[in-house]
Parts: sequence; structure tokens; C-alpha cells
Amino acid sequence: MDNRKTLTNHVRRMAVILVQLGVAHAVISPGSRSTPLAYALASTEQVESHLHVDERSAGFFALGLAKATQQPVVLLCTSGTAASNYHPAVTEAYYARVPLIVITADRPHELRDVGAPQAIRQMGMFGTHVKYDVDLPIPEDSAAVDDYLDRQIARAVGMSLSEPKGPVHINAPFREPLLIDFEQESPKVTFIERISGETTLTTEQKNHVGNLISSAKRGILVMGECLPGFDKKQVWSFAKRMNWPVLCDPLSNLRSEVPADSRHLCIDSYDALLKNAPFAAQAETDMVIRIGPQPVSKPLTLFLKKFRPKTFIVADESPIFRDPLGIATHHLQVNAMDILSVEADGHQEASYTELWHKANEIAAQLTESHRSEQVHEGDYVRTLLTSLPDGSDLISGSSMPIRDLDTYFRNTERDIAIFSNRGANGIDGVVSTALGIQTARKRPSWLLIGDLSFMHDVNGLLISRMQTMDLTIMVSNNDGGGIFSYLPQAAVPNHFEQLFGTPTGLSFAPLAEMYGIQYSSVSSIEELEGQLAAEKTAPLRIIEMISVREQNVQAHRELWTAIGEELGRNGF
Amino acid sequence: MDNRKTLTNHVRRMAVILVQLGVAHAVISPGSRSTPLAYALASTEQVESHLHVDERSAGFFALGLAKATQQPVVLLCTSGTAASNYHPAVTEAYYARVPLIVITADRPHELRDVGAPQAIRQMGMFGTHVKYDVDLPIPEDSAAVDDYLDRQIARAVGMSLSEPKGPVHINAPFREPLLIDFEQESPKVTFIERISGETTLTTEQKNHVGNLISSAKRGILVMGECLPGFDKKQVWSFAKRMNWPVLCDPLSNLRSEVPADSRHLCIDSYDALLKNAPFAAQAETDMVIRIGPQPVSKPLTLFLKKFRPKTFIVADESPIFRDPLGIATHHLQVNAMDILSVEADGHQEASYTELWHKANEIAAQLTESHRSEQVHEGDYVRTLLTSLPDGSDLISGSSMPIRDLDTYFRNTERDIAIFSNRGANGIDGVVSTALGIQTARKRPSWLLIGDLSFMHDVNGLLISRMQTMDLTIMVSNNDGGGIFSYLPQAAVPNHFEQLFGTPTGLSFAPLAEMYGIQYSSVSSIEELEGQLAAEKTAPLRIIEMISVREQNVQAHRELWTAIGEELGRNGF
Repeated sequence: MDNRKTLTNHVRRMAVILVQLGVAHAVISPGSRSTPLAYALASTEQVESHLHVDERSAGFFALGLAKATQQPVVLLCTSGTAASNYHPAVTEAYYARVPLIVITADRPHELRDVGAPQAIRQMGMFGTHVKYDVDLPIPEDSAAVDDYLDRQIARAVGMSLSEPKGPVHINAPFREPLLIDFEQESPKVTFIERISGETTLTTEQKNHVGNLISSAKRGILVMGECLPGFDKKQVWSFAKRMNWPVLCDPLSNLRSEVPADSRHLCIDSYDALLKNAPFAAQAETDMVIRIGPQPVSKPLTLFLKKFRPKTFIVADESPIFRDPLGIATHHLQVNAMDILSVEADGHQEASYTELWHKANEIAAQLTESHRSEQVHEGDYVRTLLTSLPDGSDLISGSSMPIRDLDTYFRNTERDIAIFSNRGANGIDGVVSTALGIQTARKRPSWLLIGDLSFMHDVNGLLISRMQTMDLTIMVSNNDGGGIFSYLPQAAVPNHFEQLFGTPTGLSFAPLAEMYGIQYSSVSSIEELEGQLAAEKTAPLRIIEMISVREQNVQAHRELWTAIGEELGRNGF
Repeated sequence: MDNRKTLTNHVRRMAVILVQLGVAHAVISPGSRSTPLAYALASTEQVESHLHVDERSAGFFALGLAKATQQPVVLLCTSGTAASNYHPAVTEAYYARVPLIVITADRPHELRDVGAPQAIRQMGMFGTHVKYDVDLPIPEDSAAVDDYLDRQIARAVGMSLSEPKGPVHINAPFREPLLIDFEQESPKVTFIERISGETTLTTEQKNHVGNLISSAKRGILVMGECLPGFDKKQVWSFAKRMNWPVLCDPLSNLRSEVPADSRHLCIDSYDALLKNAPFAAQAETDMVIRIGPQPVSKPLTLFLKKFRPKTFIVADESPIFRDPLGIATHHLQVNAMDILSVEADGHQEASYTELWHKANEIAAQLTESHRSEQVHEGDYVRTLLTSLPDGSDLISGSSMPIRDLDTYFRNTERDIAIFSNRGANGIDGVVSTALGIQTARKRPSWLLIGDLSFMHDVNGLLISRMQTMDLTIMVSNNDGGGIFSYLPQAAVPNHFEQLFGTPTGLSFAPLAEMYGIQYSSVSSIEELEGQLAAEKTAPLRIIEMISVREQNVQAHRELWTAIGEELGRNGF
């Protein structure tokens, strides 16, 4: 075989086996060394190729695609620092358990460690932030290499799909010349199928866990992040059967599509409630079952730490189970939902569940009705949530926006799917993640994001020059790092604005002009309502929501005080 | 000691020892976990603190500062993906040998691997792209910890400053509360001084190398990147003494401040010359001494590979000496300039040196005078170089711009310092690197950059909202990845625009408006000359130079043909 034939066979083979293992999207950044595989992917019908010139944003775009589809997504770049730019998305994918197949083209061995251009040590470069890595052989006219290639790609993709899911790194060296033969047909791969079993509780284990659960009198189900698509009925059926309140993190996706007969068990205002010491004391629990990661709410964390439940069951697919409080007593390493099918006798105190329900109603009503003198971030979020149509996706920034959602997202019958990057909670890559999610799900989508986070990933917009996507970006502009105003640092004037406030004084109108994005700026609820009712005239749209950092903190504190007082008046 | 006192002592101690070891700049990104050290650095008079909200750009800004000062620069961020964003700059620093002190704040041990927010595995996260890493202890009221801290910081900084220089990673965990006591005085550190000897050739080694050099009849000195500040006289004195031509990479900084009596030895058009097969055959060399990395010129690489010199001496401070061609015969692991002080008898053929000089004159004159029908990138670069005043800094993109400089930068008596990120040759972080260099050197500065590279690091501009800097950004806008038009890929129509051309269709006028940057766009040499003569009215300025990708390739090829023909006419 000549060189081009060998090279073409090698990369077409990679494309074929990737498709066989479920890859439907590839996010590719321009570069020379990656040419052969880029060609092979771009000319493979079953793969949708997306071009992105900024590898950092490309990484998060792929993360969004993979998160939305829960299928492996290929990320391909050339050699050198291009690969280093993937690190933020790889990190998030690792901790958020998202199956990314990171493929870095590389120089052949004779060009490594010798000062060749764009040649860096790529093996192991993502440290422990990938689940597996492999350095592929140079394309060779060898059946043994072909057989190995098929299976090695299967291993890598299989690893990324195994629980807990996560990113893997395939390093693919190519020697010049890098052109392939487009006419050459794809080879038949020799690996046929990957079948992966499910981890479930045995009958004996179910009985044991059932007995455990039966002992609870004041049980709570805590639901952390669950990606849309899981069977919500299982949760509500368990909750109703046991009469347990369900504390639903905004990312649990359990605050939407709530069946009428379960709404009383859907506790969505626990963040505000648990700030209230008398309520927290009454809400002491003897058993917590948590599915998904620990929710975003800090008051919930403090409550659980203070009134440490005797039994705290964490259902988590990983042996490295998530328990930042260090109070879990039982770890169930199974498909997390499996615990909900356990048979148990209910001994829950009806008054305990009623306590949660009543208090939740009080807090929720106040959250909906309370108004401050000046408009603040929360007002905007509440207005947005009210106006979102059935069948929308809302992607949230991981800092203030998700906390505002926690406060203002009241349970609803509408189908509103929520996403956020809470694996490592970075403010980076959020625009790209949102665009990736929208591209995969194709639903009308909104992104709720702070000004710093938006600027951090402003290059996420670059992909909108290559393909069309439908997103309304709600930028909460408080000119700087809003969340720091809630921290003790804000009480110390020394260096605060310099180190934490970081006001950039930027407005986003020119940026919208640059990208041909529909733009408006609002400074009141009436203006926002007007904008939300107005027609969307471009694929992308920015609504800049102006607020003042101090006012945002002030309004949150007022609300919490009002809730506390109202609880007091109602005997809590 | 109470907690705050212990914490304050710990971080103030870090600041003191960093200053003692030569740190004068710290680039800090906003975050909560890094608060104590951020406070300590911001309140240390001897450290200039720079705030940057995008950690990727922050990394390259620090790289620019460290490159310009050749002193260690601190880079500080909070825990989580913030640290992952440093990876591109860390990679470049490793391969470009720049002393970066990367400090990542971390959660304490009890919050690692337990699903806590913004907690990722930070130890080892930069793989082999850092020279050293250390996980510091939690602040503690202990003289032993204090003593260890002083010395461990000294070790890390010492490692970054040892040849080959490079980045080191200090992971610094802090437990809440994170506030320090600003009134508390800085402690006295217990480590006093770091003294690092120099690696030079022994007398015996000098004699041996001298004998080697004496045997050359057709010797060439090849000068790769040398940062401004080195003793250029040493180079010219060696060249004159031996009568050797010196092939000066644009980054060697030897094309500027060239003494009149050495200009005939300064070969600046070898890239064009060596494209010419008859000339290359006549220029066959028997000995090459190379200082600095292999130059950017591909024709030089091919020439050396083809006429493999019998003796190829690489002077390089690292045992992992740079020799991408795989043809070095001798490695001298010393301060690279040391080889120039070696005594040797000259047996150089005068006609050989004359051959280079004459051909270089022909190529250089044609390069200066040749005009294409339509304006192209090279015209702009030539015009810029002519107009640069004495005492300017020119920072170059690492892809097409550095190649254009190679072609058009004619040797001059003026002091024009050239910088580029050629450690890993990424197109990322270039804006930030330029701003870092300008901030350190405070000279009038120009950045020559392509449109994709500019967009890649557009967030580098964010720091201009926090501090003032003086830079003219010359964006060569050919709407996409210009360099790919020179590669074989361009001859294959399949997927070319999609995968390589990547036209974004963006203009930078709105961006300039957003940042308050002076802006103009030029489409001809006359317009560029007008703009270069016009007053600079804002600290930052963008001159967008419009060209057409195909025309740029065409013009380069025309020039090379013209030079070949003229060489032929002159008997080469």
C-alpha cells in the first residue's frame, strides 16, 4: 500500500469505529496536523462536523452537545497549545461526568522533545482529568495495527461511556504528507459490537436498603442535578408512596413538568426556608437519601451539617462518591435511580411532611410577590421564568444565575429543562455550552449569564459565524463579579473593587453589532417584559439586564428577612 | 495564634519570600479561594499587581511580563477550572523557557475528591509542562511549617530560574475564613539568599571546541530566538573574527542595531535564497553552529537536511537540546553565548562568505522593491517595518506574521526589538503576550497579528479596562486562516474553506468601539502610510489591514520567482 492509501485507511477506520460506538457530532478546530482525521470526519455522513476556531470554546461546545445527547462527542484539534486550550472543558467534563472523546493530532515520535514547532508532550497532559488516555501508533500498512486501532478506539469510547462517564484522550500522531484520498472507500472494521451491562441492586441488597428506609420517620429525598430525559415518574412515585418531601435542586429538573398530585411534595424554596433558624430546627431529619450531586444551596449544606441525619444515603455511580459535607453514612454504588424502586414500609410522620409543604408555600408566595424599591437581578429572573414557554431550555451560569434560579424557579407543569456547568462550577465556557446544548436539542433556548462569565466565553459566539443556532442570551450586567458581594470579603474595603469587583465598564451593544446579534438593554421589569414579548428577528439575541451589585444583595436580604418574619407569624 | 493571625503570617511570608527571589509582578484573577494571597500580594509595595478576569489571557499576560523582564512573574487564581485556563500559557512558557510562578489556590484536603464545588485535582494537572510542582501545607501556627514554606518557595522559584528556565506550579490550599489582617506586619523570613552559579566551558573544553571550529572552511552561524538584552557584540565579534555569515532569524534580534562593519555578515534573506535550488547547492556548508532554537524558515530546514553539514554544533542550556532536524552532531550544554568566546583559527573560504553576502544583497533589494498588482500582507509588513521608529518593540503572531517578518525585515541600525511566542508556536494568547511585554518594557509597541489569532485572544483586551498600556495592533485581516493557503491542503477543494479557511467575516470596528480603542481600516499602502503618520489618540489602537488570502500567496510566489531569476542572471 502506498502512504496515502495507508493514511486514508487509518483515519477512515477511526471515523467508522467512532460512528459505530455512537459518535454523531465532531467539533473540529482548524490546524494542519489534524488534517487527515478532520477530512475523514467531515466526509463521514453520519457525523455532523462543527468548526470552531477557538479550541477553548470548542471544548465547551462539545461538552454542551455531549451533555444534551448523553452520547460521546469527538473533539479534534491540531498539535501544540491547541490541545492545552481544551483543558478547561476537559476538567468540567471530568467532574460533570460528560463523555468527551478528545482527539489531539500529534507529530510523529521523531519530532517529539526535539524542539520541533507545535510539538509538545501531549500524553498525560490532562493529568487525572481524563479517565483514560492512549497514544495511537503511526498509520501503518498492517492488519495488526488495524485490529488494534478498532479495539483501542472502542476501549476509549467505552471508558468514556462507563459510569461515571467522563472524558478520554486519544493522541493521534500523523507523519507528512497529510492528504487523504477522498475517493477511497471506508474499510470494514473488525470489531463488531460493545455491550455494556447495568449495575443494579440485587434482591438481597434491595431488601436490606428497604429495611433501612422503612426506619425513617422524618425522611427527605434530596435531588441534585439530573439531566433531562430521566424518568421523573420514578421520583414522584417514590415520594408519594413514602410521603417524603423532595428537595429539588434547580438542576434536578424536577421543578418542571410536576404532576398536580405531587406538587405538595415538591419543595422548591428550601434555600430560603433553611436560612431561618427556627424553621431549620423544626425540620431536623433522621434520614436523607440524595441522588445526584449535592445541591447548590448553601443553607441546605449548613442545615445538614448542623442536624447531621443519623442515616444519609448517597446513591452515586462512582466509588468516589460525592459527599462534600463528609456526613454520608451509606454509599449505594448503582444506577442512582435504582434506589427508588426499593420496597419499603412507610413510617413517615405526616406532620413532618406537612411542615415542609406549608412553609414552602409561604416562602414561595413571598418570593413571587415581594418587590424591592429598585429593580434587581432576581426581578429579572422571576420575570424570565414566568414568561418561558412550555418546551424551552434554560442554560444557567454557574455562579449567581444558578443561585437566582434556586430562589425564583417555582415548580411548574411546563416543560422547562435546566442545564448548568456544575462539575467544577467554573464561570468559563458557558456561552459555548449553551450553544452546544441548543444545537443538539434544537429547542428554543435561553441563557442566563453574568457579565463576567459572558465576556469570559465571548469567543463562544465565533461558531455562530459557521452555523445557525437559536439562543436568547440574558446577560445580567452588574459590571463585575456579583457573587463576591455576598461574601465576607465585601465587608473589607481594602482592595475589594480591584480584586473582586473587577468592573470592566463594558456594554455589549457593539459586540452584538459585530456578530449581527439582535440586541436590547433593559433597566426595568416593564422593559424586560416588552423585550420578551417582542419578536426575535435574528438567530441570536442579547438582552442586557442592567442592575446594581449592592442593590442585588440588598434585595436578596430583604426577601429572606420577609420570609423569616412571615414564617414567624405563621407559628414556625 | 488565632486563625486570622496564622493565615496572615502564612500569605505575607509567601509575598516576602517571592519578592526576595525577584518577583516584581503578579497577575491575579478574581476568585474567592485565592483571597488571602491576593490580599497579601496586592498590599505588597514591591509587587505590581495586575487584575485579569480571563485566566487564559492572564497567563499569557504574565508570560509577556516574564519574557520581557526575564524575571519570575507570579500568576494567581482561585481553585477549579480557573487553573485549567492557565494551561495554554504554561505550555508555551515551558517550551519557550519562561519563568512563570503559577500559584493555584486550592480547597483544603477534606474538600478534595468529595464533590465539593470548584474543587478539582490540581496537583500534577499541568503534566510535564511544568518543571516542578509542590502542594503547600495548610497555614498552621508552626515554626517548622514557616521554615519549610520559605524554602519551598525558594526551591520553586529557583527551579523556574534555572536553565532551561520554565514554569513551576505551587498549589496553595486555604481553609475558610479567608480574610487576613491588613494591619499585621510582614514576618521576617528565615531563608536569606539564593546564589546560582553559571555553567561555562572549562579551558580544556574551550580548546577542544576551538579546534573543532578551526576545521571549518564553509562555516555558518545560525542564530535562533534571542531575547533583547543579550550582548550582540559577542556575536558580531565572533563573526568578524571568523568571517562567517550569520543567518539571523527575525527573533534573533540581530537584524536590528547592526553595526556598520558587520552588516555584510548579517544574512537576513536566507529564507528566500534557500528556496532557490542552484543557490542552495552552492551554499553547502561543512559546519553550522546554532544558538537558540531552530529558526522559523522552512527552506533553511530543508537546506540543512539535504546538505547535512559534517559538523552541526548546537549550543543549548538543556540536556533535551533542540534539534528538530535530527542532524546535530555536537551538543554544548552551556550558556549558549559561551561558545562565541572560544579561540579558533580561521580557515573560512572568503569566497563562501562572499557568496552569501552577494546573494543576500540581491534578494534583499528585490524584496524591498518588488511590487505586485494588488496590495498584499507583505506590502503592509514592509511598510510598517520601514516606518518603525528607533526604540520600538514589535510583537509578532506566531503563524504568518513571523514568516512575513522573516521575508521583509531588512537589517537596520535602528533598535527594534522583536518578540513572538515560538515555544509551541500557538496562535493563542498573542494579544496578552504583547500587552504584557509593553507593560514591562514601557516602549512604543506594535503587534503584528492575523485576524484569527487576534480573535482567539480578544479577551486579552480586558486588562486594558484596568490599567493603561500603549500598543498599536496591526491586524492583518484576510478573513480566516491565511497560513493554510501555503500548504498542500489548499490544492484540494474538498472541505478546504470549512476546515482551514474558516472565514468568520468579522470586522473589528465594533470591537474597537466596545473597548474605546482608536480604529482605522486600510486597503492600500497609501492608506497605511497615512495611518502610521497620523496621531495616536488613545492608549490602544487597531489598524485593520485588509488583504485577500489568495493574493498573499500569489505575491509571495511571485517574489520568490523574481529572486530566483535575478540570482540566475547574476550567475548563481
